Amino acid sequence: MRFCPFAQRARLVLNAKGIKHEVVNIDLKDKPEWFLEKNPLGLVPTTETLAGELIYESPIICDYLDEFYPEKKLLPSSPFGKAQQKMTLEHFSKILPLFYKIAMLRKSNEDVSGHEAELKNKLSKLNEALVNKNTKFFGGDSITMIDYMMWPWFERLESFQLKQCLDGTPDLKKWAELMLEDEAVKATMHSADTHRAFQKSYAEGKPNYDYGL
Amino acid sequence: MRFCPFAQRARLVLNAKGIKHEVVNIDLKDKPEWFLEKNPLGLVPTTETLAGELIYESPIICDYLDEFYPEKKLLPSSPFGKAQQKMTLEHFSKILPLFYKIAMLRKSNEDVSGHEAELKNKLSKLNEALVNKNTKFFGGDSITMIDYMMWPWFERLESFQLKQCLDGTPDLKKWAELMLEDEAVKATMHSADTHRAFQKSYAEGKPNYDYGL
Repeated sequence: MRFCPFAQRARLVLNAKGIKHEVVNIDLKDKPEWFLEKNPLGLVPTTETLAGELIYESPIICDYLDEFYPEKKLLPSSPFGKAQQKMTLEHFSKILPLFYKIAMLRKSNEDVSGHEAELKNKLSKLNEALVNKNTKFFGGDSITMIDYMMWPWFERLESFQLKQCLDGTPDLKKWAELMLEDEAVKATMHSADTHRAFQKSYAEGKPNYDYGL
Repeated sequence: MRFCPFAQRARLVLNAKGIKHEVVNIDLKDKPEWFLEKNPLGLVPTTETLAGELIYESPIICDYLDEFYPEKKLLPSSPFGKAQQKMTLEHFSKILPLFYKIAMLRKSNEDVSGHEAELKNKLSKLNEALVNKNTKFFGGDSITMIDYMMWPWFERLESFQLKQCLDGTPDLKKWAELMLEDEAVKATMHSADTHRAFQKSYAEGKPNYDYGL
């Protein structure tokens, strides 16, 4: 699904590592039979390898791709380096529901200031991690797996009307700007306008998965 | 915490791989200052390496241990083999809330038949996985990581009054019996009576973390 941030994780890794691949978009409101035969859970992203192996859950797919295709490794080679990235991802996963919660509250014209403050607080923890590491990206001075795992939600900050949440976190803001220069990010991203148009169709109960095609 | 199934995962892997380690039990109702300094999230299990590195979240700890200590590998070496174990773990994680839900409902004398049927249905999927693989354990004919990741909840089936849930899943029942013969399982397990006594103290709001010491 073109607008799914989890599917984008897989596309980011495929692009970053230069892995030849075919993208098949799935209409989540009307999943094709052949797709449900391949993955009865009906989840995107689902990856099918040349050997016909099926893999789902975005971090599992991305780890698989990084290990199976050894060129341009995105995960650190040290066991502790890997553990650190997994712990950061675990923290980050707990922030995600906030994005959607705020979007939902906004839709029904409810007050979001409390949730926004909570989001800012959580983002400041991420900012702190960057400051403590004193590197441009979360795994060092070049992009690694953890940056790609978090990126899709930062790409959507503007369309979620949450860009101001980065005002108090200058290092994280700089990180997001640097991410925009990355080729894999450029290859997989949508503009804020496009995200907004999709989100609008979604909020109206008629998600236009083909928007922009 | 001696009765925490997540902490038990780490102890299972430490024992299975023969890694020298010290266990420090944490009183979760009164976490010591030094512990919160090491892990501000206050989570068990938390692992500290000889180099002073701190790792938490049980699957992250277990993967770290398996990679850092190369003897007696518990994860498959193939990227797809690893992905398969992670996908099974992901499925299994979605079953876990049911165990606690049923225990809670039982405590307030509510009907659990619906939830028990749901649990049975989910366990039958796990049984199917064993039947399809046609192996004794989930990763082959010897114990691998995924078996240890799931074991702690099967150890507690009897104390949760859920043992009958295995009646319709003979392969899974056989797996649980074989697990009981494993040395790491024997080294980390508590009897049903001990689990029951702890669970009783927990349900009464006064968890006796030291029970049996």
